[in-house]
Amino acid sequence: MPASKRKIINDPIYGFITIDDPLLFDVINHPWYQRLRRIYQMALAQMVYPGAVHSRLHHSLGAYHLICLAINELKQKGIDISYEEEIAAKSAILLHDIGHGPFSHALEHILVPGVHHEMIGFRIMQKLNDELNGRLTTAIGIFTNKYPKQFLHQLISGQLDVDRMDYLTRDSFFTGVSEGVIGYDRILKMLAVHDGQLMVEEKGTYSVEKFLVARRQMYWQVYLHKTVLAAEKMIVKIIERAREIFDDSLKLNSTLDYFFKGFSEMNDEALEKFCLIDDYDVMFAVKKWSSHTDKVLSTLCSNLLNRKLYKCRLQTQAFDVSEIEEKRKQMAAKMNISVHEAGYFVFTGEAMNTTYRLQDEQINILSKNGNVKDISQVDDPLIHKTLSMPVKKFYICQLV
Amino acid sequence: MPASKRKIINDPIYGFITIDDPLLFDVINHPWYQRLRRIYQMALAQMVYPGAVHSRLHHSLGAYHLICLAINELKQKGIDISYEEEIAAKSAILLHDIGHGPFSHALEHILVPGVHHEMIGFRIMQKLNDELNGRLTTAIGIFTNKYPKQFLHQLISGQLDVDRMDYLTRDSFFTGVSEGVIGYDRILKMLAVHDGQLMVEEKGTYSVEKFLVARRQMYWQVYLHKTVLAAEKMIVKIIERAREIFDDSLKLNSTLDYFFKGFSEMNDEALEKFCLIDDYDVMFAVKKWSSHTDKVLSTLCSNLLNRKLYKCRLQTQAFDVSEIEEKRKQMAAKMNISVHEAGYFVFTGEAMNTTYRLQDEQINILSKNGNVKDISQVDDPLIHKTLSMPVKKFYICQLV
Amino acid sequence: MPASKRKIINDPIYGFITIDDPLLFDVINHPWYQRLRRIYQMALAQMVYPGAVHSRLHHSLGAYHLICLAINELKQKGIDISYEEEIAAKSAILLHDIGHGPFSHALEHILVPGVHHEMIGFRIMQKLNDELNGRLTTAIGIFTNKYPKQFLHQLISGQLDVDRMDYLTRDSFFTGVSEGVIGYDRILKMLAVHDGQLMVEEKGTYSVEKFLVARRQMYWQVYLHKTVLAAEKMIVKIIERAREIFDDSLKLNSTLDYFFKGFSEMNDEALEKFCLIDDYDVMFAVKKWSSHTDKVLSTLCSNLLNRKLYKCRLQTQAFDVSEIEEKRKQMAAKMNISVHEAGYFVFTGEAMNTTYRLQDEQINILSKNGNVKDISQVDDPLIHKTLSMPVKKFYICQLV
Amino acid sequence: MPASKRKIINDPIYGFITIDDPLLFDVINHPWYQRLRRIYQMALAQMVYPGAVHSRLHHSLGAYHLICLAINELKQKGIDISYEEEIAAKSAILLHDIGHGPFSHALEHILVPGVHHEMIGFRIMQKLNDELNGRLTTAIGIFTNKYPKQFLHQLISGQLDVDRMDYLTRDSFFTGVSEGVIGYDRILKMLAVHDGQLMVEEKGTYSVEKFLVARRQMYWQVYLHKTVLAAEKMIVKIIERAREIFDDSLKLNSTLDYFFKGFSEMNDEALEKFCLIDDYDVMFAVKKWSSHTDKVLSTLCSNLLNRKLYKCRLQTQAFDVSEIEEKRKQMAAKMNISVHEAGYFVFTGEAMNTTYRLQDEQINILSKNGNVKDISQVDDPLIHKTLSMPVKKFYICQLV
Repeated sequence: MPASKRKIINDPIYGFITIDDPLLFDVINHPWYQRLRRIYQMALAQMVYPGAVHSRLHHSLGAYHLICLAINELKQKGIDISYEEEIAAKSAILLHDIGHGPFSHALEHILVPGVHHEMIGFRIMQKLNDELNGRLTTAIGIFTNKYPKQFLHQLISGQLDVDRMDYLTRDSFFTGVSEGVIGYDRILKMLAVHDGQLMVEEKGTYSVEKFLVARRQMYWQVYLHKTVLAAEKMIVKIIERAREIFDDSLKLNSTLDYFFKGFSEMNDEALEKFCLIDDYDVMFAVKKWSSHTDKVLSTLCSNLLNRKLYKCRLQTQAFDVSEIEEKRKQMAAKMNISVHEAGYFVFTGEAMNTTYRLQDEQINILSKNGNVKDISQVDDPLIHKTLSMPVKKFYICQLV
Repeated sequence: MPASKRKIINDPIYGFITIDDPLLFDVINHPWYQRLRRIYQMALAQMVYPGAVHSRLHHSLGAYHLICLAINELKQKGIDISYEEEIAAKSAILLHDIGHGPFSHALEHILVPGVHHEMIGFRIMQKLNDELNGRLTTAIGIFTNKYPKQFLHQLISGQLDVDRMDYLTRDSFFTGVSEGVIGYDRILKMLAVHDGQLMVEEKGTYSVEKFLVARRQMYWQVYLHKTVLAAEKMIVKIIERAREIFDDSLKLNSTLDYFFKGFSEMNDEALEKFCLIDDYDVMFAVKKWSSHTDKVLSTLCSNLLNRKLYKCRLQTQAFDVSEIEEKRKQMAAKMNISVHEAGYFVFTGEAMNTTYRLQDEQINILSKNGNVKDISQVDDPLIHKTLSMPVKKFYICQLV
Repeated sequence: MPASKRKIINDPIYGFITIDDPLLFDVINHPWYQRLRRIYQMALAQMVYPGAVHSRLHHSLGAYHLICLAINELKQKGIDISYEEEIAAKSAILLHDIGHGPFSHALEHILVPGVHHEMIGFRIMQKLNDELNGRLTTAIGIFTNKYPKQFLHQLISGQLDVDRMDYLTRDSFFTGVSEGVIGYDRILKMLAVHDGQLMVEEKGTYSVEKFLVARRQMYWQVYLHKTVLAAEKMIVKIIERAREIFDDSLKLNSTLDYFFKGFSEMNDEALEKFCLIDDYDVMFAVKKWSSHTDKVLSTLCSNLLNRKLYKCRLQTQAFDVSEIEEKRKQMAAKMNISVHEAGYFVFTGEAMNTTYRLQDEQINILSKNGNVKDISQVDDPLIHKTLSMPVKKFYICQLV
Repeated sequence: MPASKRKIINDPIYGFITIDDPLLFDVINHPWYQRLRRIYQMALAQMVYPGAVHSRLHHSLGAYHLICLAINELKQKGIDISYEEEIAAKSAILLHDIGHGPFSHALEHILVPGVHHEMIGFRIMQKLNDELNGRLTTAIGIFTNKYPKQFLHQLISGQLDVDRMDYLTRDSFFTGVSEGVIGYDRILKMLAVHDGQLMVEEKGTYSVEKFLVARRQMYWQVYLHKTVLAAEKMIVKIIERAREIFDDSLKLNSTLDYFFKGFSEMNDEALEKFCLIDDYDVMFAVKKWSSHTDKVLSTLCSNLLNRKLYKCRLQTQAFDVSEIEEKRKQMAAKMNISVHEAGYFVFTGEAMNTTYRLQDEQINILSKNGNVKDISQVDDPLIHKTLSMPVKKFYICQLV
């Protein structure tokens, strides 16, 4: 089924990304998809890595490109994938992050309390499916793992999916952190389907290990870098403070107001409004509030704008509660604010990273003779038990 | 003179950028400099090249890195540069774009009519110099070419300066357009100073040709790409329409209002306000006005947001005036607006590119025996007369 | 027609190269093809660029990869190419350099006087075709431009063929000379077939200009670099001297002897022997002769081994004959050799480069409305008349 | 102390390598150093990775470049390194592989039985030091770890030396195996000296982990790749067979003969001859012997030339002796040779890899408060005990 139209997009990582099916054009040209252009993929990591300003839209195009390669590879290996399934899987990956809000993970559960981006994404896909007369039904089936050919879901969402392959590759590229470079092309060449499940051929074992190690390193060196954490906690605290004291003086006269006053649950009205907000709304608020009369709010806002971030420290033990209390009291006195308010300037929390979850999910290695082993069970594994347990660090953030 | 403090910044192009002098820290940490983080280097080129979202701050750090290399190189060749001059030149390049406003060149002369970014930059540097007790005096001297060692100015602003070297390299990297790749490291190795002027050693001739050709190609393939042009003209028309009809219904209750109502000349008040605005203010306005009652304004705004750009065509001959008039009339009828208003939806203009200006500036090639020739005078030159003349193309933009 | 077998080869430039047809395996596994593994792609350029040690085999695999991409692209655009034609074109490009001898172009016409590598290549292909029971007949037809679909020949041998695209890309990669980087992926995306001829779509114009400029720059900066020239002339002079004085004391007791004593024309015997020699034979001879009693020969050989190359100078005017004579006399006196022998140590010659031949071949640019123009006839062309004329420089080499 | 002369060399990985001291020129221009140009860095890995044809000379220049960066970094951190020590360390790294023979590690102990390349290297350095009137004395002191500032030795030879940093980076670059990419520039920025020992600052921990994992992966994916192993064992068996049956019919009339007949111990005569042989001598022998009357020898030689390599298998358990015996008998019968001779066609052995030796050497991590920990003792280590034990695999090679 040749495309009537064909478009190529320059990508600094993969060279060219090709779009060639009407459904894909309909998805990409939709305002809800274009909104992702205005959401940073890496939230405030750019405060440390100035190149890390790529958008969610760019990431989802990249993941789309990788699924094109993966599907092509599997088809060459004789796996049966119909044209309709192919386009469905491609649409699903384009839409996999459609539920992300402003500053994505940094403000998740904060701006829209109690709602996960995957749930919002699912709701948006359904609405879009209605608009497109059901042409996304298979895509949604794959996305929600209801579709019989499970390997299609696993390509989109699993321990070794094109989402992770693209974000590691892309985040590594834009930050300049070479530790995150993975051999995505080799992994893609090694993909196989066995008993309906996505697997990796045995000779791809080292590439998969590399992938898991790269992920671990990107977590600690980039995603949970102490200064990145400091910046992201600062924007969290800004939203929290604004919500706490929200009144007319904080109003922006824009859609964002709704999420401070009015929002109760993710009903249709809320969903519609959600689809209108992006990083620009939040940053505009930060700019505006930087001259507000509330000292806590304006301090946080102008500090974020001028990159005067919290001093942040990470350690493996929890911080002493009484010590924190003491610091808060000092801060309250110094700033002439209440101890409660000082909690915006001195606080602790936990940062977590799981490289590989042994229980939940598996990366199956398929040997030549048809045996299947988990990556942690191969000979001389790098991926051992301790690595597969969640690693927690405690942080403290303080205004300076 | 070892630095008390030293910071390295990850750059995806050059690896690491090192900051190691108190003055440089003072410049970088200043809110006016941090503002550049919120201005796209390539304005709306990201509508075509999704990776082109790097900031002016990132570019100026990159140019700073290149001047570090250049100065190091020249010193190794025996050129006398004192530590103070070195830091002054580095400060000057960090600040060379400080006068850019929201969406930089796209909105230059539009948002702040009749004022060039270099003039604003000069004013801001002076203010900053006051704040820093005159520690930028030499930097400003170099920037304005008042300082005796002219080659320092030429490193910052000339036909072959580190500004251009960085923006070609960086824009090429982030867009993925390999045609813009230049051998910046080779050019830097070939720099020389002769009679107080910056030159290139003879064996660097081909690298310089390559640099000029890369620039020409980036102009036509990227900077003046018809769809990039379409996007940038759309934001221009938005500002123009907003100014035309500005009243309370358009007010944003933010600093940006001043530049629609209140601004007359670039006095101190205006300058202070200028230092507060960035891409976020403009994009917030675009988002807000996308639901305004003025059909012209709201159409332009929502089209830009949703990437429904003008259809744009470039040609070497001017467009026929009567034909444009006709198209406007049709548009007016179709949209039920005046012909004047239809001028926001159908219009023409000129795009220009000069690869190399023979008259104005020179790239001097220094031969082993001490002869100096312009790059267009070497044996078998690629850079010939016709290439050095400004090339003008005419464009037409139309709403679709 | 799925392949029974499939092999992927790691390539540092393109990632992975895939081989998946029995005929391609038969070609690649043949000893005559494997011989190319032992011939440097860039002869002695590695004396200046230490990374430039890649083999002819690697280059021909690279060109093969590019033709795979090109054919895929053309088929997606609706051009009719049968599976047989596809494999034939791929076989032809794999074999396009099969007639190269030791140190390829450097020793062409020197080691086997009066025979061009394309003629030898044609003869070898015919022999191979006999061995393979005529399975290369179509490939040979394409190679010799006898096959009706001329664009297939043009992909292999033309102004813009995959051969040049790969060697510019590869030589640039391995030397580290960024000036030679071309946008091969963009050019491939822009290929079209019109009236049976290979063309480039109009929006690929700048990429083609870039390609031609890159080629020009690689010529002067790399292929005809004065020290590369010096090294390659040294090995030429070694062969010439060895031939002049060849006797039993020079015999190597290997196939190479035949080309000093015995060879008269490229008959079947000569061809068979030709298929056995490579860089190792020549370098072994150089090593052995470095201790020969003939002072001229041993000096040249040990100098080459130890990288004591001629001092070489290039200029646009011819060198003065009497001056050369004088230098030779001085050399003869100094080295206690005849003036004739001194001619091995002091000599001049011509180096040529043609970026683009207007007359012979064309790069056709296809506009949207179906017009065809040569690349030198587009608006505001970079590729102008003077650029398209052969450029000659004169060199002088002298022992130091 | 400015250099009178300065030379830059293009490197595809690092851009430019600068040589600027007379002693460095004397080392590089010496015939013994130039010999490294004719020895493959990765022996026969090019049979699998066609790009892996870079030379030992290129690697040692690369390691030299990295030590320049490292020394510069340490000096900026206030570590006292005199100009003489600097040049000595640079000379030492240039010479660190000078003792390698043809096909380096593949033929180590085979061509010159019982002699390690480091011992030969030491002998050659001493000879060179005599020639250079003692100017290498400090370099040799550093190389042999006799020099008081131990960190200089550790930069050259240790768990985290510039040798390993360059070979991982370079081998990864030329093979195209992205799994071997390390963040060498970040590691270099994190180097520190504490109590006279080379350390890594705490925030470099993840980069060091990455380095160790990259090394492990390059071992299994490249250096001990079953087909690379097969090729390297083939050349080993060729040398062994040639030595076993060496007589006049095998003589090459070149220096290599000495190592088959005449060599007893590494005395001065042997050392002088060793400095004359390289890959060309061995490959010429392979070519010549490919038509020898000894069936074993000629089969091995022509198979290697034509890339008809052993079929090789790796496993964690030893192979069954009686099974091997059986295979040999079958081979003997099939080829009409003795069972002893069949041992050249069917054999087993062990391949080893140690990622990190806990006992022998350490990578010390220096925390901000001055504490020193081994990399395996940091919080949540990736580098655990099992990883640090030698990993052995058994291989079987068989003629096909």
